[in-house]
Formats: sequence, C-alpha cells, structure tokens
Amino acid sequence: MSNCLVAQSGGPTSVINATVAGVVKANQMNPYYDKVYGGLNGIEGILQERFVDLTNMSDEENVILRQTPSSALGSCRYKLKRDNKADFESLFNILDKYNIETMFYTGGNDSMDTVAALSEYAKEHNITKHRFVGCPKTVDNDLIITDHCPGFASAAKFIATTALQTWLDVNVYTRQEVFILETMGRDAGWLAASACLSGVVDILCLPETPFDKDIFLKQVKKCIDEKNKCYIVISEGCKYADGTYIAAGQAKNDGFGHAMLGGAGQAVKEIILEAGVASRAKVQDLSTAQRCFAVQQSLVDVTESFQLGMSAHMRSCDKTFTGKMVGLVRKDVPEYDVDFIAVDAIEVANQVKGFPQEWIKPNYQGISEEAVKYLEPLIKGSPTVYYKDGVPAYVKPYYMR
Amino acid sequence: MSNCLVAQSGGPTSVINATVAGVVKANQMNPYYDKVYGGLNGIEGILQERFVDLTNMSDEENVILRQTPSSALGSCRYKLKRDNKADFESLFNILDKYNIETMFYTGGNDSMDTVAALSEYAKEHNITKHRFVGCPKTVDNDLIITDHCPGFASAAKFIATTALQTWLDVNVYTRQEVFILETMGRDAGWLAASACLSGVVDILCLPETPFDKDIFLKQVKKCIDEKNKCYIVISEGCKYADGTYIAAGQAKNDGFGHAMLGGAGQAVKEIILEAGVASRAKVQDLSTAQRCFAVQQSLVDVTESFQLGMSAHMRSCDKTFTGKMVGLVRKDVPEYDVDFIAVDAIEVANQVKGFPQEWIKPNYQGISEEAVKYLEPLIKGSPTVYYKDGVPAYVKPYYMR
Repeated sequence: MSNCLVAQSGGPTSVINATVAGVVKANQMNPYYDKVYGGLNGIEGILQERFVDLTNMSDEENVILRQTPSSALGSCRYKLKRDNKADFESLFNILDKYNIETMFYTGGNDSMDTVAALSEYAKEHNITKHRFVGCPKTVDNDLIITDHCPGFASAAKFIATTALQTWLDVNVYTRQEVFILETMGRDAGWLAASACLSGVVDILCLPETPFDKDIFLKQVKKCIDEKNKCYIVISEGCKYADGTYIAAGQAKNDGFGHAMLGGAGQAVKEIILEAGVASRAKVQDLSTAQRCFAVQQSLVDVTESFQLGMSAHMRSCDKTFTGKMVGLVRKDVPEYDVDFIAVDAIEVANQVKGFPQEWIKPNYQGISEEAVKYLEPLIKGSPTVYYKDGVPAYVKPYYMR
Repeated sequence: MSNCLVAQSGGPTSVINATVAGVVKANQMNPYYDKVYGGLNGIEGILQERFVDLTNMSDEENVILRQTPSSALGSCRYKLKRDNKADFESLFNILDKYNIETMFYTGGNDSMDTVAALSEYAKEHNITKHRFVGCPKTVDNDLIITDHCPGFASAAKFIATTALQTWLDVNVYTRQEVFILETMGRDAGWLAASACLSGVVDILCLPETPFDKDIFLKQVKKCIDEKNKCYIVISEGCKYADGTYIAAGQAKNDGFGHAMLGGAGQAVKEIILEAGVASRAKVQDLSTAQRCFAVQQSLVDVTESFQLGMSAHMRSCDKTFTGKMVGLVRKDVPEYDVDFIAVDAIEVANQVKGFPQEWIKPNYQGISEEAVKYLEPLIKGSPTVYYKDGVPAYVKPYYMR
C-alpha cells in the first residue's frame, strides 16, 4: 500500500490544524493510505525528509489538535520555483522513497501555486504515482473561487469581538476619544471589514478604497462633532491613490516579494493629530494575536476546516485526483450551509480576491447589508475549549518533538 | 426608606460590571434600599446628578451585564481633592437630595482615597446619614491588603493565553525569531508576570527589577544560541536603575499625575537589534484589549467580582459600615477559596503592592513556583458566554441611553 503526506505552509491561522486532523481522521475511517506522514516546515522540511507519523493519532490528540492554533507541523516561506529543477527532482525522489501517493498541502495562493507546479511537473514527466491536493487556509480570505477560506472566520470573530470590547472601553470617559484598530490584510480588506460585525465602527479604511486624506479627515471631524468619539478600523494594506501604502515609512520586504506592513494605524493617528481634528488618539495593532486567537474559534470555521481535510482525503481515493484544491461553495438555502467542491489549483494560484467594491459604502462609512449577510454566518458558534492549568490545552508542535 | 448609589471609576476591566450586578442583585434579594441608583461617569457625573435607576434590573440583563466589559456606568478620571470644599458640599447636597444612604464606589487606589476622603468629611461634619463603601477593581492587581483585585485575573488569563498562542505562531518557521509581548503595568508587574502561566516565556522584564541592558542582552543571546528563538514579555512600566522608563521616549502625562506609557516593547526591540544579538524581532503591544477581553473572563474572577458587590451591599445594612473597602483573603485550605473581608479604605488608598521580589527569578528568568501557585487558581474556569449575531451580547452602556 501507499502512504500520504500532509504539510502546512504560509502564515498560521486558528484552525489550520483542523484540516490536518481531518485528513488523519478520514484515513482512520477509511485506511486508504498505509501511513499518514506529517511533513515538518512545509516544502522546506520535506526536502530534508523531516517527517512524523500521524497515522495512529488518538482521538484525544485529534480533538486538541483542532483547537491548537498555528501550524503544528511548522510552516515555511520557501517557495518552490518552477525553474528550480533540482528541488523538483529531490522532492519526487523523496516521495518515491517514502512511497507517498498523495501530498496534501494547506496554504494560501502561493501554496496553491506549489500544488499546481508539482502536478504539472508530474504530468510533464508522465509520473502518475504521485498526486497533489491543496487545502485552502488564510486569514486574509483572498483566494478566488472558494466562497471563503478556513482560518478567516475565526480571525474575523476575534476582530469583531475586539472591536466591540475596545469600543466599550474607549467610551467610558466623557472626554474626546479617537480609537484606531489596525488589522492584517495586505491586499484585501476582508479582516478589517469584519470588524463592522461589531456594529460600532464609524470609519473603515480598506486596501480596496484609495485613501483620501481630506475625505477621511472630514469624516473623522463629523464624528467628533456629533459625539466626541470616533472608532476607526484600518487595514495594514490601506494605500493612497498612487499605490503608496499609508504605512510606507515602516514598509519592508519579507523576502517572498511581499511588502511587510504595519503602522497604518500609527500613520492615520499622526494624520489626525497633525490636522488638529482631534487632540488625542489611541492605536491598537492586533498584530500576531488576530491570526492565532484560537480560544475564540468560530465553530463554523473549525468545523469546515476539519471537514475540508476529510473531503480532501476522501476525494484523493480517486486516482485521477491531482492538481486540485478543495474549496467551499455556499448553498442557496435560507440557513447557512456549504458544499465542498474541487477546483484546479492553478486557477487559484497567485490570484487575489479583494473585498467587493459593491459592498463598500462611500466615504469610509463601512460595509453594506449584503456584506454583513455574507460575513455573519461565518463567525457563528463557539466550540468547547479544553483548558489545562488555566490556559488552553494544545498539542505540542510536532516540529519540537 | 433610603436609597443607595453605585458608581465606577478608573480604567475598565473585564469584570467591573459584575460588582454592580452584585449590588443590584443583593438589593433584590434583601431590599434594604428603596432604590439602587447608578451614577454615570463616577464622581464627575454624580456632581451633575446624572443617575439611572437600576433597582428593577431583569435577571437577563444582570447576567449579560456580568459579561459586559468596561464600565457600563461610565468612568472618570476626576479626582476629588480633599481641599476642594465646593465639590464635597455639592456632593453631600446631591446625596441629601436623592436620599442616598450608601454610596458604593468601584475603583483602584485613587478611588479608595475618594471613599476615605468622603467618609472622613462626613465624620468631621457629624454626618451619619451618608456612608461610603469601596469595591476594589484593577487589572493591575496593585492594591494592598486584599489578596488580589477583581479584574486582574481575567486580564491575566487573556495575557497567558495570548502568550501561549503567539508563541505557537512565532515558532512555525525555522528562521531566527524574537517575539516581544508588551503588557500593561505601570508600577507593578503582576500582568506581565501572569504571562508566565503559559509556560513559554524565556525572558520577563518587570517594573520591580531594574533593567540592566547587558544582563538582558546576554540572556537574549543565550536563548538565540540555544534554540534560535526568544520569547520576551515586558511590562510597560519597566525601568532602568535610575528610574527612567525604558519607554521614556514615548512618555507623556495623563493629567492625573501618572506617566502614560507604551513603547517598552519597541524600545527593547531596538536595543536587541542595535546590539546585533538578533537580526529580527516582532513586537505585540496588548494595549487596550487586555483589560476588556471579557469573552475570556476567568470564572473565578467574575464570580468573585459579583459576590464582592453582594458582600458590600450586605455589609452596608450595618449603619456603622462606612469608609471601608471590601476585599478578598485567601483561605488556608488545599483547594483555592476566599473569604470576603472589610478593611479601612484609607489603608489601601494611594498605596501600591508590587510583584513580590522573592517571586522573581534572577536575570529575567521569570517567576518562582510560589508565584505560579498564587496566580494559577485565579485564572481558572470559563463562564458561559452569550452571543448575539456572532459577537458577544452586551448591555448597552447606561451612559449612552
């Protein structure tokens, strides 16, 4: 019999491990593969043959794994380049050596490109014994075709909750207050937009709307005039009409061709204070916490992430299934529900789905009812959280064992 | 019959409203007072006769109030000065007008000074029909005599959880990483120390230990050499031996005689990078979120906060009970339990209880087993959280109605 391999790539999410748990569980229910290997640190570790055996994971570990944030198998930012033949040859040799029929790879649009590249390579070289299946995950929710991405909803829930809670905090004094909440979202405003589910956001700045200083300041002033308070949410990727990031002063490069952002909140604070529209402003940058705050997983999100892993395993029992990503499509029924679908990974690779223009209200006034209808069902429900000694129980990362 | 008044002061916590809920509930169980007034925005609003009637609060509202973070009655930073006779006269006139026998005031050491000052004034002027009772609350946990302060444990739980979750996040790549988590704690290191409950903190910098750059950098280097990673937690109030705050560059004054801090994390990041001990470092400042993240209340904390409000009401039925603060004392029994006690508010006023020196390990290596034994029981248990439309249900602030 053959084996399968599951590995994780890109930035962590709160539910990324649930997909791995789903693959493992599906293979226990239908042992199509002899072994389920976990590849450590994505492609980087696979090329070094750093594997763990997940086949016989206990049900207790499986449950705790689902609530453990961040990649329990480790991640990488190593990109498999199509012209790097040596890497491809090494990788296929390793797949041969470990008799790996299917490799499941969880990640964002870069990882889907890896899935596509590996299946193309196999096809070009008439290799049929190795197959490649992508499982989407990204807090950014920016993959095309799939209705949404596992990981997004839990981050969205944390952001909406934090917006509500910090809004309650900032209003307690009678004095003037401007509060600025900065979220992730380099190219797409999904995370920042989800703060509006709190119902308390006065001004929303997304990467999809060019930042116009005058309109922005006018809106802040209007808020201050009306109620002496202003609650602003801004995406790290917010930019001026000429494409310059607001946080340009802090911009660096992460070596993967992406700008590393941070500081958009601080930048608009300075804009507000310099213009004299308000006398004080406070910034909270949600930073790393927003993508790993797993004690506040959305039940819908963690369930879908787990089932997506199972679906990927189940579909992979068809020997023609390769170069695919398993995605989600929303059913056209009154109560929220999804179907799992398979799409060609190449279609998803390197594409970005922005927050729809038609869902953005003019003058930074937030999002439409349609947008709320899309977002709200995703953040609903809270799974039971298991604690140990007062902090959430977690699975010790496999790369640390 | 007479009435009572409950009001809130100082910075918010995740459980501050539970004390108000306890006063209201106790009066429903034993209607000693005709009416339970809520005073809006603390002393500031009371002087403007801004009251709401909480007497007949429904049980449903009482339950939701307990899970609503931040001061639902609003807060103030207005300090009643002993030499401001006009304020005292106005206040006592208002208490007369509304026939208020007892005023309950929740707050930190400044608020306990207010309770003491008001009861002293009454005594000096032979006024016996108005009494003053303090209820402690502060995320800083820096009040003396009481074993701990309601509000601290929920913030501690959020901090420990965030430390664990961000540590899982920052370790996923094979590259070198330094992560710096900044917590509140101007004068006392309780909040920063509680991060150690996660079991993942490599280096802990508290206000109680003078910051020595050389020892600190040596410890960071040791960590990096050993495992290529270093997880640092720093209190905003961390200072050099000469008393200068590390974050001195950003220091401002909040008008209450307190230094406004923030930026200690950024400061140590720069120290590390300048020394070349690490090539990259990431900072997360927990900022406002840590004191209002009520979806992760500690069950022990919210229960104690509620019962403390009830205890204050019950004790106030004794007509000699004034100038007191209700506090907590830990029982000397194997399983964690507390007794409620009454202490003179003047004893607590304007004092600060630092994190004990004997609980601090040398060279920024964290906290002792004794400290863990003290902290761990406080963060245990999670109350049921009620949600509405995907975000936590909350009581609309009374000052907004």
